Amino acid sequence: MRKKTLLKKRLSELRISGILITNLTNVRYLSGFTGSSGFLIITPKRDIFVTDFRYQEQARHEVKGYSLRIENSERTREIKSICDECGIKRLGFEDSNITYAFYNALLKKKIRLKPLTDIVESLRIIKSSEEISFIKKSVKRAEKAFRRLQPFIKVGTTEQKLALKFEELLKAEGCKILPFEVIVASGSKSALPHAKPSSRRLKEGDLVVFDWGGEYNGYMSDMTRTVLLNGKDVSKQKELYYNVLEAQRRAVDSVKAGIRSSVVDAAARNYIADKGYGDFFGHGTGHGVGLDVHEKPFVSWRNKEVIRDNMVFTIEPGIYLPGFGGVRIEDMVVARKNRADMLTSLPRKLKIIER
Amino acid sequence: MRKKTLLKKRLSELRISGILITNLTNVRYLSGFTGSSGFLIITPKRDIFVTDFRYQEQARHEVKGYSLRIENSERTREIKSICDECGIKRLGFEDSNITYAFYNALLKKKIRLKPLTDIVESLRIIKSSEEISFIKKSVKRAEKAFRRLQPFIKVGTTEQKLALKFEELLKAEGCKILPFEVIVASGSKSALPHAKPSSRRLKEGDLVVFDWGGEYNGYMSDMTRTVLLNGKDVSKQKELYYNVLEAQRRAVDSVKAGIRSSVVDAAARNYIADKGYGDFFGHGTGHGVGLDVHEKPFVSWRNKEVIRDNMVFTIEPGIYLPGFGGVRIEDMVVARKNRADMLTSLPRKLKIIER
Repeated sequence: MRKKTLLKKRLSELRISGILITNLTNVRYLSGFTGSSGFLIITPKRDIFVTDFRYQEQARHEVKGYSLRIENSERTREIKSICDECGIKRLGFEDSNITYAFYNALLKKKIRLKPLTDIVESLRIIKSSEEISFIKKSVKRAEKAFRRLQPFIKVGTTEQKLALKFEELLKAEGCKILPFEVIVASGSKSALPHAKPSSRRLKEGDLVVFDWGGEYNGYMSDMTRTVLLNGKDVSKQKELYYNVLEAQRRAVDSVKAGIRSSVVDAAARNYIADKGYGDFFGHGTGHGVGLDVHEKPFVSWRNKEVIRDNMVFTIEPGIYLPGFGGVRIEDMVVARKNRADMLTSLPRKLKIIER
Repeated sequence: MRKKTLLKKRLSELRISGILITNLTNVRYLSGFTGSSGFLIITPKRDIFVTDFRYQEQARHEVKGYSLRIENSERTREIKSICDECGIKRLGFEDSNITYAFYNALLKKKIRLKPLTDIVESLRIIKSSEEISFIKKSVKRAEKAFRRLQPFIKVGTTEQKLALKFEELLKAEGCKILPFEVIVASGSKSALPHAKPSSRRLKEGDLVVFDWGGEYNGYMSDMTRTVLLNGKDVSKQKELYYNVLEAQRRAVDSVKAGIRSSVVDAAARNYIADKGYGDFFGHGTGHGVGLDVHEKPFVSWRNKEVIRDNMVFTIEPGIYLPGFGGVRIEDMVVARKNRADMLTSLPRKLKIIER
């Protein structure tokens, strides 16, 4: 298994004799295990997967390439006994997953520890062709559900009803889980980038932001479309929309391997600022998507990460005017040497819904 | 606000001048905030809620009794500047929420830190009458959805179809989120305590385990019922069922304030062992339910926690025979001085579904 080999290479570089993997997404990435309790210990010679009684049968089906072990005692004691058995002198651990309390409990067992930062995340950030094919299927499921939602988007319905229907359609497409609760935000509520669907009824002139994602084999997708319910004077709504669309296009066009992600962010942000809305785009331009719906690389003005071939991320600028409403357009792309390949195929032209 | 007052009392006992609350469930418990990014700093004189731009408007609506502050910089820098402003000399933090990496980042800002264990959880473990009323409503929603599911439980349908329908019904009852993905496990799959719904079709003689929960105002519920699809010889299935039911009854009957939770566990476990199935009940007998679906108190042989008045928890023994099938029956109770009050009202008698 290629992923495990890459990881083992790092053991001697890091001067450790074993790695403890506790982040469950990383456990899944390396072993295939989809349950909610389990960890890995990887040494030069042995690969051990540990879970508890509840996941014993599931692990037998899912986990390949690891010897399976069932936790019978406290987790720290289990880890200590594996270290003793495998002769692990210094155990690397994931410093942004292990809590302070757990770190201390391991120290008390006299395990020598070495904190590691993003040891698995640095592998996950580059997607294999198999992973990209899973992500594409995840995108397809999300898109189909949105298409099937169209007849339900109309004046008088509520955000909550739309969100409920939308989640049903996503599940019906085969998504086993949803990466996050669907966002449906209408009218002035659309000015809240992370609004929860409310009992507000859609009315004429509303901008309606839909932000949702699908799932396929654990791989997530994430996209946003903003539609307009036609009304008397919707010129402001249209102006916002086409400003965001152009900003989004510029950010997508800027993508290529070798540039910093902050360059992609600036392509969108500078355009929005030029149009006078610089104060109304407060979030980053995008984020990586894979087994987690928010993962590296983060595309923002704060981030110096260099874009590399086969990174998958969103591009989602927005403008949010408090009290009036907001627009966000979000697509997923995969970075290539000289361009971005678009993963999202939904149209980007403003959809205007007539009464 | 009573909760905050209780917390402030502990500041001087702990010799700290401020507490950092980062666990989002604890943030919600103390402030009302339901978003997914934010933290609290509580000092004798000041109560500060911090979130980022995305949740600004949401926080204005939800958070009462805290001054609202928007993160403009890295979180550690934000915390440092609040410590300086408020004259916090020593900051308590939640040791099972803060990661090793974040702890180190705070140390680098020269913040004096004190790890605290279960500082808010020790309040949450005892439910107020308002919380119990929310939990009751959460139970009701879950029960109604299960009643509405009954006509769909029949030979030939798949676990996945049932689970999808069930989740739709739960959402339709008003649950904004589900505490976990519904479990529908039939036939030999029912021997996996945490099975995922599969494409397996229900057939005659199957035991079918349903494990699900509802939500009301953030408060969760959790229950399990096992039904039998009638078949030629189902005597073994019935024997398992009535053994679990009696074990469950005994555990419920054992509950009263003042005993250790391990006593409740033993009431169920000893009965199952006496019947010869001791090796086939590998998990604990129950767990607390509140804003989290798995929280303190944990009811198991390992746990010495003393049951107190107004604790809410599940009682859910099971027997799982690999290759054959399993039975679990789970109710929620609230502990009182001399008894358990049942929160679940679904019948416990074995439901046999005829073709």
